[in-house]
Amino acid sequence: MISKLKIGLFGFGCVGQGLYDVLSKSSGIKADIIKICVKDRSKSRKLPMELFTYDKNDILNNSEINLVVELIDDADEAFNIVKAAMTSGKSVVTANKKMVANHLSELVELQSKHNVSLLYEASSCGSIPIIRTLEEYYDNELLYSVSGIFNGSSNYILSKIFNENLDYATALKQAQDLGFAESNPLLDVGGFDAKFKLTIIAAHAYGLFIHPDDILNLGIQNLSLDDIDYARKNGKKIKLVNVARKLNDHEITIHTMPTFVAPHQYLYFVENEYNGVIVEAAFSDKQFYLGKGAGGHPTGSAVLSDISAVTYDYKYAYHKASQDKKLKYSKNVLLEVYVRYSSDEERNLVPFESISEEGKGYSIGTVRLENLLNKNAELLSSKLFICNTGKNIPMLALQVNEPEKAAAH
Amino acid sequence: MISKLKIGLFGFGCVGQGLYDVLSKSSGIKADIIKICVKDRSKSRKLPMELFTYDKNDILNNSEINLVVELIDDADEAFNIVKAAMTSGKSVVTANKKMVANHLSELVELQSKHNVSLLYEASSCGSIPIIRTLEEYYDNELLYSVSGIFNGSSNYILSKIFNENLDYATALKQAQDLGFAESNPLLDVGGFDAKFKLTIIAAHAYGLFIHPDDILNLGIQNLSLDDIDYARKNGKKIKLVNVARKLNDHEITIHTMPTFVAPHQYLYFVENEYNGVIVEAAFSDKQFYLGKGAGGHPTGSAVLSDISAVTYDYKYAYHKASQDKKLKYSKNVLLEVYVRYSSDEERNLVPFESISEEGKGYSIGTVRLENLLNKNAELLSSKLFICNTGKNIPMLALQVNEPEKAAAH
Repeated sequence: MISKLKIGLFGFGCVGQGLYDVLSKSSGIKADIIKICVKDRSKSRKLPMELFTYDKNDILNNSEINLVVELIDDADEAFNIVKAAMTSGKSVVTANKKMVANHLSELVELQSKHNVSLLYEASSCGSIPIIRTLEEYYDNELLYSVSGIFNGSSNYILSKIFNENLDYATALKQAQDLGFAESNPLLDVGGFDAKFKLTIIAAHAYGLFIHPDDILNLGIQNLSLDDIDYARKNGKKIKLVNVARKLNDHEITIHTMPTFVAPHQYLYFVENEYNGVIVEAAFSDKQFYLGKGAGGHPTGSAVLSDISAVTYDYKYAYHKASQDKKLKYSKNVLLEVYVRYSSDEERNLVPFESISEEGKGYSIGTVRLENLLNKNAELLSSKLFICNTGKNIPMLALQVNEPEKAAAH
Repeated sequence: MISKLKIGLFGFGCVGQGLYDVLSKSSGIKADIIKICVKDRSKSRKLPMELFTYDKNDILNNSEINLVVELIDDADEAFNIVKAAMTSGKSVVTANKKMVANHLSELVELQSKHNVSLLYEASSCGSIPIIRTLEEYYDNELLYSVSGIFNGSSNYILSKIFNENLDYATALKQAQDLGFAESNPLLDVGGFDAKFKLTIIAAHAYGLFIHPDDILNLGIQNLSLDDIDYARKNGKKIKLVNVARKLNDHEITIHTMPTFVAPHQYLYFVENEYNGVIVEAAFSDKQFYLGKGAGGHPTGSAVLSDISAVTYDYKYAYHKASQDKKLKYSKNVLLEVYVRYSSDEERNLVPFESISEEGKGYSIGTVRLENLLNKNAELLSSKLFICNTGKNIPMLALQVNEPEKAAAH
């Protein structure tokens, strides 16, 4: 057990500032931030200048520092910092989902090789303790699926559209003004941010280290009034939904895409910047977690929790990755999708295997996941709006009024 | 780290049997049940008789056994077993909320004195990992409140009444037939079971070891058609709600009672045997957890998770109990309640401080918590139906459409 943590902090934006505030007020946790590395020399700082440095080595080479907290934007620079910190025997807490998702295998090896902790609860679904839960709670269960709404920014936009009749552009601007959207909104609305989180969750849920580039992500950036009307007419909302689920005993599949959600489903009620996670498992049955996914404070609270865990020498064990029976990732899965197109050329990007409904400017039918994944980049840069009908995603049906089940006697 | 757990199991009802099944199927967890102590000699068992014993000392004196799992009904006998196990250096996992709630201080001392773990996630809200979450996640946060629906049995009854128009007696019988109700239904419908869980949760949330007898519990056993009609007419449902909340910097209050819940509140959607827990904290803001609270499998999954944690030497740290700034429990709190009475004599059991509404056979007004607590036994044995109007319980208003908050910049 580490008696006192001496923290070197990278980044001093809203999460970093919130964290500093909390640590100075908190009597329970034995940790001090002793150095803060920032990039912007011109910004005035509310704290004494001696706390700050512009040279990362002032932290990385400081033997007094035993924990690095990484809260910067640049995922590549973040990886360099984190790798250097772990190599020199310092534990790390990070909120950087892109960095973790892109380098997870190597990061797990580094933890093992240098006997340090790398914790990243804040990288996935903000204040919902899903990583810790998957690691410790569902350790040995038959986990059927982990799914939900993992990006607060795009969900905020969708809430404003469906609940308050705002148009997409106005809703996006509001999200940016409120600080819910990344500087490049496509990271949020295109489903990339959600996909990074899904990657991390899949590793802890199923022991599979899948590269984000190998996971389908489709977004809401082409959402049109026609699509909103279609959803409404059918009594549904559109949510950007992430799914990691077992297909059978030895295979799982995984994807991020807009999905039609019905009023009897819990995700229907996940609004604004909230995230919602549904876990389905053999013994605990269905679980639903709801919490804020965006904002300095919710993220900061997850970072704080990880810092606290480091004082107890907590490490992710990646149990499922070390179990004998390995699961495989299958892309040979049939999805039912609604596709709105403005040209035949673009419509032909979607290799439908069967069509069940056609209307003015849209088609609904089945398509194989791998065939969408092969063209992920093209689909993202097209004007197509592609939405999963939710038909083949059973776990979303966490119903408000569950049909009665027989007791477990 | 314990390399292999040798488990002595007390009780072989539906949770115990479910646990045995899971452990034999599970490859991930290194634990074997090597002895099962049961009471009923006449019951035929599906497993070899050599596994069973009728003498607790066959487990308690067995030095090979390093973990005792306690799943019996009798809270007093359970305490004797658990105390003996811990005293002889064995860690313990239990699901017995009454036993834990009634002896928590002593159990914490025993853990410390004999350097063993006592884990009891299954004692609170079934498959919702609330204890672990309060211990590890909100370690250092300003926790405003923990509240929710903690008893699946009474909630099942209320769901059937409000959603399917069953009368109380029919709904109760269905709950018993499905195995959701304890053999003595008053434990569930009177709010005792919920109160035990609330006691445990308050210890982990606030570091206060409050005896259950010092906490108000009112139940739904006197719920009448008039009360159901009143709720419906006002667009509400009645739920049996538990609250542990901060009043200010140095005081908390705590109670279990029926409460009117409105459609914009999340607890409105917690149905049947599901439990729902709302956590409000300074930095993570509002969190909501939903999961099955009753049944062999959900409880078994929580027990399994605790067994897994023991292999990693996990112990509850009761952080908040060891922090300098101690909170106090205040009963000097004004509640607004609806009271249905069938005699003036019984109505006078409730010392209203003010009345806001009177009708045929009911009154609504304010009353001090301590004045209800002082008469808790009388109130429970009367025919009064007392229901909190929800007015002074802000944390329940986790709204489906949250009003916009300013970003944390």
